[in-house]
Amino acid sequence: MADKRAICPDADPVLEQFIEGLDVETSHHRMIQQENKCGYGLSGVCCRLCSNGPCRISPARPKGVCGADADTIAVRNFLRSVAAGSGCYIHVVENAARQLKKTAKDRAELKGIEALDRLCKLLNISGFSDWDRAAKAADAVLSDLRRPVDEQMELVEKIAYPMRTQLWKETGLMPGGAKDEIFNALVKTSTNLNSDPTDMLLQCLRLGISTGVYGLVLTNLINDVLMGEGEIGFEPVGLQVVDPECINIMITGHQHAFFGHLQEYLASEKVRALAEQAGAKAVKIVGCTCVGQDFQLRKAAGTDAFCGHAGNNYTSEAVLAGGCIDLVLSEFNCTIPGIEPICQELGIPQICLDDVAKKANAEYLPYHYQEREQISQTVVEKAVESFRKRKVSVPGDVQSLFVQLSDALGKVAADSEEARTLDSVLAQAAAKQDWGGRKNPMVSHGYSNAITGVTEVTLKKFLGGSYAPLIDLIKQGKIKGIAGVVGCSNLRAKGHDVFTVELTKELIKKDILVLSAGCTCGGLENCGLMSPEAAALAGDSLREVCQSLGIPPVLNFGPCLAIGRMELVAGEIAEALGIDIPQLPIVISAPQWLEEQALADGAFALALGFTVHLGLAPFVTGSPIALDVLTRQMEEITGGRLMVDTDVSSSAAALEAVILEKRNGLGL
Amino acid sequence: MADKRAICPDADPVLEQFIEGLDVETSHHRMIQQENKCGYGLSGVCCRLCSNGPCRISPARPKGVCGADADTIAVRNFLRSVAAGSGCYIHVVENAARQLKKTAKDRAELKGIEALDRLCKLLNISGFSDWDRAAKAADAVLSDLRRPVDEQMELVEKIAYPMRTQLWKETGLMPGGAKDEIFNALVKTSTNLNSDPTDMLLQCLRLGISTGVYGLVLTNLINDVLMGEGEIGFEPVGLQVVDPECINIMITGHQHAFFGHLQEYLASEKVRALAEQAGAKAVKIVGCTCVGQDFQLRKAAGTDAFCGHAGNNYTSEAVLAGGCIDLVLSEFNCTIPGIEPICQELGIPQICLDDVAKKANAEYLPYHYQEREQISQTVVEKAVESFRKRKVSVPGDVQSLFVQLSDALGKVAADSEEARTLDSVLAQAAAKQDWGGRKNPMVSHGYSNAITGVTEVTLKKFLGGSYAPLIDLIKQGKIKGIAGVVGCSNLRAKGHDVFTVELTKELIKKDILVLSAGCTCGGLENCGLMSPEAAALAGDSLREVCQSLGIPPVLNFGPCLAIGRMELVAGEIAEALGIDIPQLPIVISAPQWLEEQALADGAFALALGFTVHLGLAPFVTGSPIALDVLTRQMEEITGGRLMVDTDVSSSAAALEAVILEKRNGLGL
Repeated sequence: MADKRAICPDADPVLEQFIEGLDVETSHHRMIQQENKCGYGLSGVCCRLCSNGPCRISPARPKGVCGADADTIAVRNFLRSVAAGSGCYIHVVENAARQLKKTAKDRAELKGIEALDRLCKLLNISGFSDWDRAAKAADAVLSDLRRPVDEQMELVEKIAYPMRTQLWKETGLMPGGAKDEIFNALVKTSTNLNSDPTDMLLQCLRLGISTGVYGLVLTNLINDVLMGEGEIGFEPVGLQVVDPECINIMITGHQHAFFGHLQEYLASEKVRALAEQAGAKAVKIVGCTCVGQDFQLRKAAGTDAFCGHAGNNYTSEAVLAGGCIDLVLSEFNCTIPGIEPICQELGIPQICLDDVAKKANAEYLPYHYQEREQISQTVVEKAVESFRKRKVSVPGDVQSLFVQLSDALGKVAADSEEARTLDSVLAQAAAKQDWGGRKNPMVSHGYSNAITGVTEVTLKKFLGGSYAPLIDLIKQGKIKGIAGVVGCSNLRAKGHDVFTVELTKELIKKDILVLSAGCTCGGLENCGLMSPEAAALAGDSLREVCQSLGIPPVLNFGPCLAIGRMELVAGEIAEALGIDIPQLPIVISAPQWLEEQALADGAFALALGFTVHLGLAPFVTGSPIALDVLTRQMEEITGGRLMVDTDVSSSAAALEAVILEKRNGLGL
Repeated sequence: MADKRAICPDADPVLEQFIEGLDVETSHHRMIQQENKCGYGLSGVCCRLCSNGPCRISPARPKGVCGADADTIAVRNFLRSVAAGSGCYIHVVENAARQLKKTAKDRAELKGIEALDRLCKLLNISGFSDWDRAAKAADAVLSDLRRPVDEQMELVEKIAYPMRTQLWKETGLMPGGAKDEIFNALVKTSTNLNSDPTDMLLQCLRLGISTGVYGLVLTNLINDVLMGEGEIGFEPVGLQVVDPECINIMITGHQHAFFGHLQEYLASEKVRALAEQAGAKAVKIVGCTCVGQDFQLRKAAGTDAFCGHAGNNYTSEAVLAGGCIDLVLSEFNCTIPGIEPICQELGIPQICLDDVAKKANAEYLPYHYQEREQISQTVVEKAVESFRKRKVSVPGDVQSLFVQLSDALGKVAADSEEARTLDSVLAQAAAKQDWGGRKNPMVSHGYSNAITGVTEVTLKKFLGGSYAPLIDLIKQGKIKGIAGVVGCSNLRAKGHDVFTVELTKELIKKDILVLSAGCTCGGLENCGLMSPEAAALAGDSLREVCQSLGIPPVLNFGPCLAIGRMELVAGEIAEALGIDIPQLPIVISAPQWLEEQALADGAFALALGFTVHLGLAPFVTGSPIALDVLTRQMEEITGGRLMVDTDVSSSAAALEAVILEKRNGLGL
């Protein structure tokens, strides 16, 4: 066991104390060890594309051996990252579409027929049956993704806001086949190929558009058809969702449809019997990372296979260290390598369903639709077997972890001002716990009533079938504007979820309604900001709105994929107002962006014309051209703009200023 | 103009002196400036995939924030590079196949009907006309490239050596669709996805196979159909090929078929008249980088549009600085950014035909088959216009550069032992020059009689229609074995072409026949090793063989793409002997590998079972697993092995030892 050591700050005081007390090493510890950063790497001016390198750019050495300057090097690195990030989302949508096609061909259940109706209306698809329509929709997506780069994709115009597609056509930003755009970007950024920074930055925008329209918007719409639609509700979140007396399968990734069969199977009599034989109450799925948010959104499609969402990417190590997880089932990122040694130490088996996310310790069980029954059986067998070993070998350790977690809560409650503020909320959460009458030692962490299931459909339904009430509130100034606080969690922007939570608090205080999607949700809900009680933290008029509607000031759209749903919301509001997206009093912040995927998301937001705030600069600041294009010229190209600000208060102020400026532009 | 400064060593003494005297900065100068290398980068243990980074691995910090260790980080970086390199070759073969398809559809001339016969025989294609067969062959390639990753490509078995495909099937190395394999590798190496180094290294082999079979072998076979086949001959090489009184278009890249129309057009009466009006003798293509080698191989398909191959990637700046180039026409790598400021300073326009290789200063003129006539016209118009300006504005400068080049030769001849050895060859070369009776000031650099046009077809034809005579020479020990000295040129492995030329000299001294393809050829031919007189440098028995046949001890296969031709030669020799490739007394060295493409080539060579030597380590040495797999375990998987040796003599000795061991295995 590793020594105790310093960890990075956490917005979640209970989690922070818990991790501080752990005997295993986590990312939160390693963030401290890796604090010294390389300036070349941070600014993107290190190139290792050829054997003459690595070359590093400095005032004394303004060019690499080949002659590439800071602009070429930094932008080339950046484009390659955006391409990889786009690739991740395109991989996900391609798998979802293939799953839809196979489900339709197999005449198996489609859980979201209304969603299918909407999707087919959008894509102008008709057919003789739901399966026929679903198969056609899947084919439309798949054939677009695989078009050559010099052939424009057809669905962009059907999905995106018309004023935007008009602009994208005029500016040469309409993407060719999504996979080929990514392929070409990879080639373009190879040794001694493209050295035109502007050309490469424009390709980032094309990649952003294909990422957004397909990877974000269409993945959700397809998953709604396959897995059923979201429904607004209030759910428990945090480590407390893990019931030690269940056989617990922690999931990580982004591909909800890979779990369709498993959900059903866990609810079967056969699995109930298996659990009982093993002395467990049930076999449950524990949500972690975005796929957990997706389960939460859809309430696991009506089954009780899902016990709740435990936390985001950098909460996963703590969830495992809690000692009550019996198997980790992964199908994509954000499956951090840090979980591997913890699994090994605690004897938790890992199974990977997709080789792109294969972990070193894990068994690889490739997901194929046709083999879904066998896969579900294997997963459950291995989880049961692991549970039997857990019962035997580690109860003492686990018990001590629970005690420690309770202690952590106690300490926080006693020592910290933060905790005192939240204390009443926590107490209320604890009181509301219902764990079948018994005391759950993990009750201490999380909230019992985070809002879940907000989508472009449920939000409108909640508002009475139209966005008019929301638009009216904005017009009246009761809601000053909307901020999408989205994306990942990282540990460098002040600590785990710190920037996200602090910025959100400042924004709601300024009467700005916050919508969230991604690991940001995991942080915000575990810190209570998605519970209705958090209305108390909002400015006067937003608080009033929230209290009258019984909602929190921060709405939970679920996984990062759902950033695409926000685009649909923005489009509908713009349409109702007869304006283009950059005119809306809506801003985007990815305060704690982490992954290459987030860069592709950001490129989409810029292509849509949003002002996009980041709490950490991407690794491209060594390029004067990139800075000029992203933060200034972009406004002329798309109406969007990148804003990097590493200070919470000035970020909040700057975002408010943008909203006020947009309001002003609309005469509000 | 920049100050004179130190440059890196060059195997080519005349070129070295010339570059030393230049007033413009070149890569050879910047190599000195960038001499201090980052140890993290060199060993591959720096990760910048996420905003928690960059993370750097050291004994004190054995893991990145996310938990990725040196193995995961270094292998992830490596796989991404191999994928990018593979992408470059797959881009090239896809363009070639599209060109073939369009040419066939257009019923335009196919210059290599025998090549088409062979290709169709290989692919088992028949048809009612040559165009029909060509279109079918193109379709077979294109559809394979675009298969999904979980669908194996069909042509691998038809092209590769059967004992190899058998092994690849048994070991799970048969690649899925080439573009999807690359796409998946990019996704796999993104943030918090794959962390299994062995899985990633095996994917490198799959990428190597698709790179080799499609990017290397099939690109050549398609180009042979489109552009005509090679023919063995002896041609002038070096800066001397540039005639100052011509309008000179320097080409860089790898896609010979993009120039099919231009070749024809330059030979037309219209262009002859344009040249005459401008006061020039003709409009000529000056070869530079691999596409120049491809022109050289095919003698520009019988036209006189091509004046010869001037030099490799890191010779390109010198060619431009000579002042007689009127336009640079690029379609791919290795178009180094260093040529841009030289073009700007001398007023040389740049045109790019493929956006993946767009240069900052350049005009982008996208190559489309249908628009080839317009493109050729535009290129010629701009070159003529540029020539008129050159005549007016820079004759003094150019004259002084010529004098300087002559001086450089004089100095070398006077001072250097190296030069004295080569002096008689050079004198002979100079004497043979025929520049229309007038003194060519650039006569001083290069050789008049480099062997060209060696392919799997012409070599066999040269040997009398079978490889038996070559096999007999090997059996008799007159040729100890064969070394493919291939790939790029870099500036770090002892200097420009230094390792390549020195290693080759040592190998031929040991009676090992050297075959070369890629920028290595540019160096070897400019240093005289591809001229018949170089037989004098070979060991006794190899010299005797060469002299009796009138060939040099180093054979010129042309562009790096032609590494694929060597694989065909190796396959035929193995077949004749009834053995598998790893049993052959043939080794591969990429002594001065430079690009990501070279890593993909190397992966192919390993998959084929060759021992592969590199003169510089790839950036993966920080991973113990990678080192073990590449240098040891690989032998059990494919029979191949990576050998990194940065010393010329011990590399030559080690390669000889491998050859002797293989001979021993065959009882020779």
